[in-house]
Amino acid sequence: MKIVAFGGGTGLSTLLKGLKDFPDIEVTAIVTVMDDGGSSGIIREELGVLPPGDIRNNIIALAEDESLMAQIMAYRFKDGERFKDQSLGNLIIAALTKINGSFPMAIESISSILAIKGRVLPVTEESVKLIARFEDGQIVVGESNITKKNGKIKEINLSSQAKSFSKAIDEISMSDVIVLGPGSLFTSIVPNLLVDGIPEAVKDKPKILIANLMTQPGETTGMSVEDHVKTVENYLKSKIDRVIINSQKIPQAVLKRYKKENSEPVMCKSEDPKFSRIDMVKIIVDKMDGQEKVRHDPHLLAQAVRQISMVLIGDKSGIHS
Amino acid sequence: MKIVAFGGGTGLSTLLKGLKDFPDIEVTAIVTVMDDGGSSGIIREELGVLPPGDIRNNIIALAEDESLMAQIMAYRFKDGERFKDQSLGNLIIAALTKINGSFPMAIESISSILAIKGRVLPVTEESVKLIARFEDGQIVVGESNITKKNGKIKEINLSSQAKSFSKAIDEISMSDVIVLGPGSLFTSIVPNLLVDGIPEAVKDKPKILIANLMTQPGETTGMSVEDHVKTVENYLKSKIDRVIINSQKIPQAVLKRYKKENSEPVMCKSEDPKFSRIDMVKIIVDKMDGQEKVRHDPHLLAQAVRQISMVLIGDKSGIHS
Repeated sequence: MKIVAFGGGTGLSTLLKGLKDFPDIEVTAIVTVMDDGGSSGIIREELGVLPPGDIRNNIIALAEDESLMAQIMAYRFKDGERFKDQSLGNLIIAALTKINGSFPMAIESISSILAIKGRVLPVTEESVKLIARFEDGQIVVGESNITKKNGKIKEINLSSQAKSFSKAIDEISMSDVIVLGPGSLFTSIVPNLLVDGIPEAVKDKPKILIANLMTQPGETTGMSVEDHVKTVENYLKSKIDRVIINSQKIPQAVLKRYKKENSEPVMCKSEDPKFSRIDMVKIIVDKMDGQEKVRHDPHLLAQAVRQISMVLIGDKSGIHS
Repeated sequence: MKIVAFGGGTGLSTLLKGLKDFPDIEVTAIVTVMDDGGSSGIIREELGVLPPGDIRNNIIALAEDESLMAQIMAYRFKDGERFKDQSLGNLIIAALTKINGSFPMAIESISSILAIKGRVLPVTEESVKLIARFEDGQIVVGESNITKKNGKIKEINLSSQAKSFSKAIDEISMSDVIVLGPGSLFTSIVPNLLVDGIPEAVKDKPKILIANLMTQPGETTGMSVEDHVKTVENYLKSKIDRVIINSQKIPQAVLKRYKKENSEPVMCKSEDPKFSRIDMVKIIVDKMDGQEKVRHDPHLLAQAVRQISMVLIGDKSGIHS
């Protein structure tokens, strides 16, 4: 079974970590390259290459967990005026882009050095930024400014038209199922759908949306699962076939802390059978701030995606219809 | 045949490039870690790890020439305020030092990733600097300041006593032959001999010195091969058994350019049979400044080292005596 999964750096990498353990699944991740903050933003600006951060996270997710090269790719410098917070993996991808003369070839090179299970592709080779129009009418340019503004996004766009990467289109056409998310709605999922040719390429494929666990302050505050679906379908210009929603209870103490940060579980009231409710949460302790956080369990999430994909492929081929 | 070769980053790596092609030679490079300039100096200061530059050059020399990982290790950034002139290989060794908690383990890790033919070891694990006393009486601290001063060095020392790295001593004790150079006399060869225990460890081993091709302005101006030998033996506290000298003529045009920079061929007048004269020069065009430069031919140099080593081992074992 061939799955193409769309997203950004964090949520998508959780899904990939789970999917790589299923030998009957071949996965290709198609990833946004619109980031302009942090180490990626500095590399984008100073070295003139596409922001490698989201790509890097997904490559590491598909690598052997304990390999030294994966540790090198995941390393972030902690000292030094010049290097603090810089990602070594980002610098390696940037250097390979200069050596190979192409960003996709750099990704292919590092993927082969890491012997990853699957493929990671940029959605476009073009350097574009995100532009958001907020409910208050303000127009904000750049992913990092958009998330900083902490407002209600009305519409998201690219700074200029961007052609989709041809190999991404090839992978979509050979796929059995398209998975969207998990990931930030307006800065990880939707940006992929703004690239020329992507909505058309996925139109006739079975499509699964993985609903986020919690709302993101300043991006999806107050939005239900149904609101997420509506937004994605709007940019997709076609229908989502199935939505995977977490049904597992989250501990009150954890919810209370999230609420302080203006974040709540993404709720779904609909009884439509296209919403698949599955227990698939784990609570992790964040290494940086020591706080308990809600995450998808990679294995349970991947298992759900696999099962639902099999049903959808069966439906399409008429076996279950 | 087991060879232990001492030096710094540039000259020694030329020898290693040649030696790695002889399957009957097992080579260990023992390398200075006293550099404090360039990318190594910045990493030393900002990240608090030993300067990795000389080690890196020798690791790359022992790697498969065309491998992508070797290209990554050799890459130097050309753009960006923050990254320009930084060596990616140095950053990888620094990161591995933080990941592994030890500089020698970092070197071992990257050596195994690159599957190098041979070993590269730091002469010490301690962070020390060079101190030079010049003929004019001035005391200068730090390798980069010493070469900048452009004076006549009377004596060189370490900023504090440094214990030799135990694995380097093990390798010396198992070796058949010790090779010194090629490399900067006072900043690549001698610093190794200032480390506690090194002169004693190499005392009873057959020792070959590879004479430099040209004098180094501000380090060995006016010095003959015999002067080089005397200096090395002074710090070594034992005798050099053989000296390999280039006998090949260098084109006049190239010599003329070197002379402008106050550099001349290192001359040898002695007829003592311990001086082996061998044709082993190649002229390269420097990628940075486009000028023709004199270099040892790695293969011819390694061949000479191999032949002379066999004679010396034979002498020691009594076969040729």
